[in-house]
Amino acid sequence: MKSLDRFVRALRRLPGVGPRQAERFAAYFLRASQGETEEFISALSSLKQDIKLCQTCFCYSETPVCPICSDSERDPGQICVVEDPQDIEAIEKTKAYKGMYHVLHGAISPLDGRGAQHVKVRELLARVQNATTPVREIIIATDPDSEGETTALYLADLLRGQVEQITRIGYGVPLGGDIDYMDEMTLGYSLKGRTKI
Amino acid sequence: MKSLDRFVRALRRLPGVGPRQAERFAAYFLRASQGETEEFISALSSLKQDIKLCQTCFCYSETPVCPICSDSERDPGQICVVEDPQDIEAIEKTKAYKGMYHVLHGAISPLDGRGAQHVKVRELLARVQNATTPVREIIIATDPDSEGETTALYLADLLRGQVEQITRIGYGVPLGGDIDYMDEMTLGYSLKGRTKI
Repeated sequence: MKSLDRFVRALRRLPGVGPRQAERFAAYFLRASQGETEEFISALSSLKQDIKLCQTCFCYSETPVCPICSDSERDPGQICVVEDPQDIEAIEKTKAYKGMYHVLHGAISPLDGRGAQHVKVRELLARVQNATTPVREIIIATDPDSEGETTALYLADLLRGQVEQITRIGYGVPLGGDIDYMDEMTLGYSLKGRTKI
Repeated sequence: MKSLDRFVRALRRLPGVGPRQAERFAAYFLRASQGETEEFISALSSLKQDIKLCQTCFCYSETPVCPICSDSERDPGQICVVEDPQDIEAIEKTKAYKGMYHVLHGAISPLDGRGAQHVKVRELLARVQNATTPVREIIIATDPDSEGETTALYLADLLRGQVEQITRIGYGVPLGGDIDYMDEMTLGYSLKGRTKI
C-alpha cells in the first residue's frame, strides 16, 4: 500500500525509530479516530508555527527573547554553553545555576564534516564581544563524548582572553552509580577531581 | 511552552512512547525543515484518506476489497483468523498459506471489558454462513496469550458445525530458540506436539 509505505518512510526519519516501531505507529494512526489524527496534525502545526529560536541564546522560545534571557534576576556575567535546547531543562532542574545559556545546536565533529560554522559558535563570540554587562565566565557544558570534548577545546581556544574564566563541567562517578561497573576513564577523572570532605 | 506540551501529549498516545522519547521526537520536529514537516503531515493525511478496511476480511486496503480477497488463485475454502492486520503480513512472509484471512481487530478480553461484540466475530460468522464456496477450514491464529486463547476457544464454540475443521496454530519451541531458556508451558506444548522424523 503506497500511502502506508510513504508514511512509514516519514516515520523512519524520527530519531531511533526502526522498521517495527514505524509500523506500530502507522497501525496506531490507522486505528485512530479522525478527531485524534486531526489533533495530532494541529498540535504539530502549532509547534512549528509558535516555537522559534530565542534571538539571544538560541533555545526554543514562543517569544523573540526567551524567558531566561529576559529574566533580570539571572546573572548575565555567566554563560553556560550547551549542545541542545533539552540540556537547558536538565541543568535548570538542578536549581544550581542562575546564569544565562547559549545553545550551539550540535557539536563540532570533523569526522562527520561538521565544523564550527555548522554550530552557533560565531554567534557566541559576537554575544561575548557585544555584551553590555561583561561576561565573567563561560561554562562549557557540552556532552562528555569525543564531539563534545572537541567542541569544548575549540571554544576554550576561541574565547581565551575574551572572558575572565572558561570552565568545563566536572567529570566523575554519577550518584547512584556503581564503582565496580564504572569505566576506567570516568573513574580516573573522578580520582583526579576528588574534593576534601 | 504550551505548543510543545500539547504536541508531547499527542505523541504520548503513540504505542510505547514514554516522556523521553516524546521529547526527542518533538525536538526532531523543531529542528526539521518546513518541507520535512509538511511531507510528514501530508503522508499522514493520505494514510487516513486512502486506506480503509477491506469489506470482506477487514484488513487495511486501498481498494474496497483487498488484493488477497480478490485473488482468484487463493483458496476461499480456508480462512485464517488473526487479531491484527500486521499478523497477515507475518503469515504471508512464510509463503506457507494460500487461503483467505479474517481480521478480528483485537481479542476478547473479559477482564478489560472487551467482549465478542468488540471484535469482528459476528462478521466472521456471517461470512462463513453466506459463503458461495463453502468454507472447509477455519485456522485460528490469534496470539498465544490468555486473550488470544480465550478468543480461540470462543470462536471454536461458535463455529463448530458450521465448517468441516477448526484448527489452532501449533505451539512449540521457536527455531533458533534455546531449550534451556524456554518456559515450561511452551516446552510442554512442544513435547505434546512432537512429530515423527
